[in-house]
Amino acid sequence: MRVGIVGGGQLARMLHQAALDLDLPAWFLVRPRDEGIASEAARIVVGALDADGLSRLADIVDVITFEHELTPPEVLTTLEAKGTVLAPSARAMQVASNKRAQRELFERLGLPVPAWELLATGGHRLPTVAKAVSGGYDGRGVRFVSTRNELERLDSGTEWILEEPLLIEHELAVLVVGDRGGAFHAYPAVESTQVDGICVRVAWPPRVPDALATEAGSMAVTIAEELGIVGVLAVEFFVADGSLFVNELAPRVHNSGHLTIEAASTSQFENHLRAVAGLPIGPCDLRTPAVMRNLIGLECDLGRYLPPPGVRLHRYGKTPRPGRKVGHLTATAPTLAEAEALADLAYRELVGDA
Amino acid sequence: MRVGIVGGGQLARMLHQAALDLDLPAWFLVRPRDEGIASEAARIVVGALDADGLSRLADIVDVITFEHELTPPEVLTTLEAKGTVLAPSARAMQVASNKRAQRELFERLGLPVPAWELLATGGHRLPTVAKAVSGGYDGRGVRFVSTRNELERLDSGTEWILEEPLLIEHELAVLVVGDRGGAFHAYPAVESTQVDGICVRVAWPPRVPDALATEAGSMAVTIAEELGIVGVLAVEFFVADGSLFVNELAPRVHNSGHLTIEAASTSQFENHLRAVAGLPIGPCDLRTPAVMRNLIGLECDLGRYLPPPGVRLHRYGKTPRPGRKVGHLTATAPTLAEAEALADLAYRELVGDA
Repeated sequence: MRVGIVGGGQLARMLHQAALDLDLPAWFLVRPRDEGIASEAARIVVGALDADGLSRLADIVDVITFEHELTPPEVLTTLEAKGTVLAPSARAMQVASNKRAQRELFERLGLPVPAWELLATGGHRLPTVAKAVSGGYDGRGVRFVSTRNELERLDSGTEWILEEPLLIEHELAVLVVGDRGGAFHAYPAVESTQVDGICVRVAWPPRVPDALATEAGSMAVTIAEELGIVGVLAVEFFVADGSLFVNELAPRVHNSGHLTIEAASTSQFENHLRAVAGLPIGPCDLRTPAVMRNLIGLECDLGRYLPPPGVRLHRYGKTPRPGRKVGHLTATAPTLAEAEALADLAYRELVGDA
Repeated sequence: MRVGIVGGGQLARMLHQAALDLDLPAWFLVRPRDEGIASEAARIVVGALDADGLSRLADIVDVITFEHELTPPEVLTTLEAKGTVLAPSARAMQVASNKRAQRELFERLGLPVPAWELLATGGHRLPTVAKAVSGGYDGRGVRFVSTRNELERLDSGTEWILEEPLLIEHELAVLVVGDRGGAFHAYPAVESTQVDGICVRVAWPPRVPDALATEAGSMAVTIAEELGIVGVLAVEFFVADGSLFVNELAPRVHNSGHLTIEAASTSQFENHLRAVAGLPIGPCDLRTPAVMRNLIGLECDLGRYLPPPGVRLHRYGKTPRPGRKVGHLTATAPTLAEAEALADLAYRELVGDA
């Protein structure tokens, strides 16, 4: 079974590491400017995220999966119609690439979402959160809007949804793994912390009642079932006024799952590949409290940095730029408080302050 | 800092995985027939373990290290004389490739070794253990000899040492990491179990008194200091009649250290690369009891195998042959007894019986 992975960043890099342990031959479709995996793995296809690039990958492999949602949906639909096996499917990828389609799906499934509407000609309540329907990530494509003037200045070339601002108490994420037989396995819900729309920290266990974490897991499985997900699906939640709201999804390995490398029986990267390749899904239990910190846009000497006991560093092979994730570190410890303290210590040692 | 690694097997494969997390560009010198890393990493030099092969690697990288002791010592001595940085040094590699030189070193350092002598023309006490001075590994080059006839039939093209058979109660191994500044860091001693001269299992903590494990650590550091080791040095010990005997050494990452991937703050692979590249050495503490089982010559469907919770599988990308290590699994658990039970369960599930 030969697996094609569309993407050349850090997720591709960590999938490569997992593919080695599984002895699964993986090919990567990378763009000429990609860092991360391009100079590291032997099986690389250099090409654009278009019909030509995807077809060249499809000619080599038995199944194609994705590191990101940047491939145009029509390319995937055509590819699937020609018989290429995509995991997840073109439809799941299409929903994932469009925030409006995601919200409509969540509502159709009866899941709670923040009140939202399409940006039309006027009459919207302010303040509001404007989100570009497609193309946004890591805080890009999201604007907090408090005046009519700001609203009118939103790029008219993009479709926007406007979302009621919630007083967010916690953010949760659930990873679900769907296998080729239609069974779904959920990792325990983790808690993520966002700053300016970028995830800076992920922790397990989350500081919410167990019932809420369990409910998030059920909702994520409901979504995965509806989309017929094969591989990892990440679903992100807001907790506001003690209740869950589904925020968004990504049908791929996800930043919120990096702590599974150290803390789970099976990492998200291994389980994604297992699912895509038709292998049995590994156990999704988390075995120790863990805190992951993203290393974003750092100019410090990551190479010379030495993590303290209990902390592991992962570098992505990317040139630092403001706002760019260049690595992460994960602390594990017998309690969440200790893992938090350890991750904070490591982060402060690394960047000088936190 | 560009690192050259001589070797293309599973140790190279796991060094590649660690190099990705460190973002350290690593080149591998592989022989045309090597499996393991050859088809996986982007930076490969295909060549023989001779002056030409090593020189081509040396032209690319800043420092060369080794997965095995198969490079002829004279090739390394010449390379070093020409200014190539080897870590470990040509001298350390020379001692490592010769069991007689090892024994003489241990004796010079005043360390206890099993009584031994060179195979000469006659008059040896039988039974005895005959060990080829060079070229042996995984039980090859070792013979239990009980008759004069067997002794005379030993290959006269090889130098042999004859060793007093000990009633071995335990076998220990210690990994020491030497940095470029001349400091040494030891991992806690682990216990290995050999069958027919091949290591089948490694566990931590070892079932020996703490004082004995500590003493083994000190002896290993003494040897590493004497050899000026940079990188990992593995030293193997016998415990007989309650006392330690130094058996042999390998100046490289080692089968007895595989459990450091899951159980240590820093894996042996990461620390070897850190040392070789002149980076600070990561903490060597083991954080959980662990049991590693080698998967040797298995014809079963490793690909379909699903480890239970707490067990991780590592495949090496090698075609199964009798006696060949094709992968390993590591169980971690709160107690050694649980880790043992888990590893045994996983192994039995995998091979049908144990």
